[in-house]
Formats: sequence, structure tokens, C-alpha cells
Amino acid sequence: MDLKDRIRDIPDFPQQGILFRDITPLLYDPAYFRQAVNMMKDQLQGLDFDIIAGPESRGFVFGTPLAYLMEKPFIPVRKAGKLPYKTRRAEYELEYGTAVVEMHEDTVKPGDRVVIVDDLLATGGTARAICNLVEELGGEVAAMIFLIELEALGGRSVLGGYELKTLINY
Amino acid sequence: MDLKDRIRDIPDFPQQGILFRDITPLLYDPAYFRQAVNMMKDQLQGLDFDIIAGPESRGFVFGTPLAYLMEKPFIPVRKAGKLPYKTRRAEYELEYGTAVVEMHEDTVKPGDRVVIVDDLLATGGTARAICNLVEELGGEVAAMIFLIELEALGGRSVLGGYELKTLINY
Repeated sequence: MDLKDRIRDIPDFPQQGILFRDITPLLYDPAYFRQAVNMMKDQLQGLDFDIIAGPESRGFVFGTPLAYLMEKPFIPVRKAGKLPYKTRRAEYELEYGTAVVEMHEDTVKPGDRVVIVDDLLATGGTARAICNLVEELGGEVAAMIFLIELEALGGRSVLGGYELKTLINY
Repeated sequence: MDLKDRIRDIPDFPQQGILFRDITPLLYDPAYFRQAVNMMKDQLQGLDFDIIAGPESRGFVFGTPLAYLMEKPFIPVRKAGKLPYKTRRAEYELEYGTAVVEMHEDTVKPGDRVVIVDDLLATGGTARAICNLVEELGGEVAAMIFLIELEALGGRSVLGGYELKTLINY
């Protein structure tokens, strides 16, 4: 089973010149979705970690089944103004534009080892911002895992020093 | 185990006079999160349905573990402009404001029986809009399931005629 068979290419989305890798066909095919989650789980098995964090919205799609299966706490990392309790925030650059991520302050505790889960590693800006939040709160990033890596965008070099796992590479 | 023990009340969020029910403590406690997902699964067991649909972002949190466990396709229902392929859209009213939801056109097919999953039933606007999208595409709503129902907001009457399941009631 090749996960790429359920990734659809959409040219010029969300803007001219961007080739968007659409994961919705993978979510629609239970065999492929289960395979993707299981592969992530296998890659994290044996790793020493305490918490799974995933950014809104597509990080939730893989982060919550993993949290369920691996019996780990899940931290939602959200866009500005969405989390209701006391938050820490970090700004970051997107493949197109800039944005802010926020995390509740009472989640990561000193010494906690956090795995960051998302669907896509592009420029690495979102993941880098989440690493900063985790470390500001005294935690450590145990690993990051992505369904897709867009190698040409250089995210891997922005995240140098962290353990990176990816399932599909373009 | 009472799921309410992991729901945190936040007064005046996102605006004055709204008592926000914060589910992040439940997501942070694996025993409670697993219990919530398992209770949803139990409520759906034996129901005749084909697909699970969940609205961005918190519908993803419960919808994707259920899709994984029950081996069903997952359809992400997203805010305007997020889905990259051909979409259908519906406008709806929130507890505070208005918004648009979109679904890919190539998801629900005539005769498909869809379960809608979300964290919160408030006014019922989002769920109603998703029902409309499902039915426009020729599908049927087999049931809707919510972690939390805010009874005073009357969502249940807006959704009269549909099968409604809820885990926590306020």
C-alpha cells in the first residue's frame, strides 16, 4: 500500500504557483488512513515521550488517533484567540504569509518530552514555533512526525537538531 | 468516571456573557479522552452508516479516532476557502456570529448514510448546515453525536427529526 496513491495534487492552491498536496482522499479511505496512523505509531513505538501536540486543524487529524492508541495526553496547538485559558504564543512564517500559534500554559511541564504531529512539513515554520513554545515551558521535543515532507522547501534544515520522522516525501 | 470532571468552565469567552466549556483538560487525560471516544463508538455500534463527517477543528478531534476505530471514511468539513478541491458550501449562524462550512463534492454520494461528529451542540447551526450539505449531495444523516450539549441554547429543536446522541449535558 503506497500512501501517495491517496494524496491528490491540486495546482495553484491556495494561490498561484503552489502545488497543494490534498490529504482528503487518504482520510476518505479507511485502509489508507489506518495505515498512515499505524505507521506513525510504529515510528513512535519505543521512543521515550510523555505528550503528543498537534497544530490546528490537520495536526488534530493524526494527533488524536495517535493519542488515543498510545494512551498519551493530547495538546491542541491553536491559532490566535481560539484557546480559552491562559496561553503562550509564538509567531511563525508559513509557506505563504505569517501566523500565530498558541498553547495552553498548563500543558507542558518542565522535563516533559513532547512529540509534535502534523500532516505536512513545508518550510518548518509552524513546527519550529511549536518547539519554541514547548521549550519556553521547560519541555523537550522528543520528536516530530509528519505525514508528508516537501523536501524542496527546506523544513528539515530549519528543524536541524530535532528528531524528524516523515511518511511520504516529495 | 464522569467526563464532566475534565471539562473546565471559562467565563466570558470568547466574549462577555458566554460560559465556555473547555475540553482541553479532557484531551490531556488519556483515560478520559479514551472513555469519551469509546462511549461515542458504543453509541454508534449497530447503527447502519457509511461515513463520518466532522467540522473543523474540534470535530476532527473526535471524528478521526472514531473513523480509525470503526474503519469508516472521514470527511473533513472546513471553513471557507480551506478545502482545495471542488466544494459545496452552506452558511450558518453560530452562538456568536455567522460562518460558512464547506465539504468536498466528491465525498457524499447518493444513498450514503453519514454520521456527523462534533464536540459541542450549542444552537445547532453548524450541524444543521452540515445536514443540508449532506442532503444536497443525495446523502442521508444517519445520526449526529456530540461530546457536549448545551441544552439552554435549543440546538435539539433546530435538529428535530434527526437522531441525536450526546455524552455530557449542561
